[in-house]
Amino acid sequence: MNYAQLVAQIKQKKSFLCVGLDPDINKIPSHLLSSQDPLYEFSREIIDATAPYAVAYKPNSAFYEAQGWKGMLSFEKTVEYIRRNYPDIFIIADAKRGDIGNTSAMYARTFFQTMDCDAVTVAPYMGKDSVSPFLDFDGKWVILLALTSNAGAADFQFTESTDGSLLYEKVIKTSQEWASHENMMYVTGATKAEYFTRIRELAPRHFLLVPGVGAQGGSLEDVCRYGLTEDCGLLINSSRGIIYASHGEDYASVAKEEAHKIQSVMENILTTSHII
Amino acid sequence: MNYAQLVAQIKQKKSFLCVGLDPDINKIPSHLLSSQDPLYEFSREIIDATAPYAVAYKPNSAFYEAQGWKGMLSFEKTVEYIRRNYPDIFIIADAKRGDIGNTSAMYARTFFQTMDCDAVTVAPYMGKDSVSPFLDFDGKWVILLALTSNAGAADFQFTESTDGSLLYEKVIKTSQEWASHENMMYVTGATKAEYFTRIRELAPRHFLLVPGVGAQGGSLEDVCRYGLTEDCGLLINSSRGIIYASHGEDYASVAKEEAHKIQSVMENILTTSHII
Repeated sequence: MNYAQLVAQIKQKKSFLCVGLDPDINKIPSHLLSSQDPLYEFSREIIDATAPYAVAYKPNSAFYEAQGWKGMLSFEKTVEYIRRNYPDIFIIADAKRGDIGNTSAMYARTFFQTMDCDAVTVAPYMGKDSVSPFLDFDGKWVILLALTSNAGAADFQFTESTDGSLLYEKVIKTSQEWASHENMMYVTGATKAEYFTRIRELAPRHFLLVPGVGAQGGSLEDVCRYGLTEDCGLLINSSRGIIYASHGEDYASVAKEEAHKIQSVMENILTTSHII
Repeated sequence: MNYAQLVAQIKQKKSFLCVGLDPDINKIPSHLLSSQDPLYEFSREIIDATAPYAVAYKPNSAFYEAQGWKGMLSFEKTVEYIRRNYPDIFIIADAKRGDIGNTSAMYARTFFQTMDCDAVTVAPYMGKDSVSPFLDFDGKWVILLALTSNAGAADFQFTESTDGSLLYEKVIKTSQEWASHENMMYVTGATKAEYFTRIRELAPRHFLLVPGVGAQGGSLEDVCRYGLTEDCGLLINSSRGIIYASHGEDYASVAKEEAHKIQSVMENILTTSHII
């Protein structure tokens, strides 16, 4: 999916919600455990319930892989299910990969050929040749970790270099030599809304994937105040706040309500910001 | 496997060779492609051929995952095969994982519970809470990326901070607050042998996992000159130089010869360094 298609979908659905799929076998409703493929069943029901309100899904590979090869199969089936039933929805493999070139090329093959994801989250530590193999696929995206939403972000991402920039700023600046806003996004944590002004100075047009709204404590309004572009430019992720809003048999309908609530707020923001 | 057991194995085998398992479906000998599980068959034959000379195997998850869930099954079977037949050999899941705490905990479950690997390679960018879930398992190790062997290492790892340290140095210093030399190692690229003196100042006792000897151009002797500790303290990885030394039906026997050659050099180094 290209940049224009993503923007068109946001305007059509009046939403920039990304639903994070983190299906933990120990947290999903117990009635699903007797099914043949609980992680897939859980994911599928969440998808069907929330698809009217979401422009992206972000299945988190860790939660599937924890079940070994069977979990990887659930992951693939989930991606295939979205692609088949909701072809306009952007699929992000949240995998945080990144390795030397020939190995990153293998990961790119996994997510872009073996599966048909639109984007992969990638860690920047190993530099350009660890990222560029993911950029060799037309219509596919890298979502590079810049400023993450966890406490540990402070350990290295705020390290000030002798040229005055912080490490996450250097990641954003340097990586723009590798790709444009049409095939790269950045992960920027919502618990750091005050940094969005700086991020927008560095990356005025790039989409930002913003985790941490909801369970991790970020504010949607704050992020939008500083982060919106004229094309929206934000994908706001919510995982636990939607998928685990209920642990009962009504989990899908409650997830739907939560997604709808967020979409309503987003519609209002898009309208008052004259994006739609 | 704990530190003492690893050191004992090195002394007994007179080797500190780690064989990297990077089974690329497009590179393995063609006669294997008709087998039911080519990646596993290739890995198994390489393991049986090289086990007398290796103290560690490092299956690279990317090369297995590229085949989707079937590749993940090949990966699991490979780990299980090593564990069952060579219980004293150290198994490194080369996966370069790292995410927020609850997600890293899932990856740790994958490699330490669903599988019985001894160690996982982890990327440091997201800081302490992305690494510490891997440290919650007795006898298991984190191998943290510090100074990698690829060209892109220069993009961020050498960034000088205002306190005078380079980013990879800060990673080594900071992470020692999280774990000791008994459950953490560092990835330090062999193409940067001149940096080993500095690394040993920062981490005098830690094991270093050294990729890049062979295909990536590093020198075994240089690395040992600056990197050896009294307990050896090095695991030198070779992947392509062993597993793809021949692309014919004799690939396993040629791999055995290559591993034996490296082990002989290592035995000599261990002897002249009075480690054995």
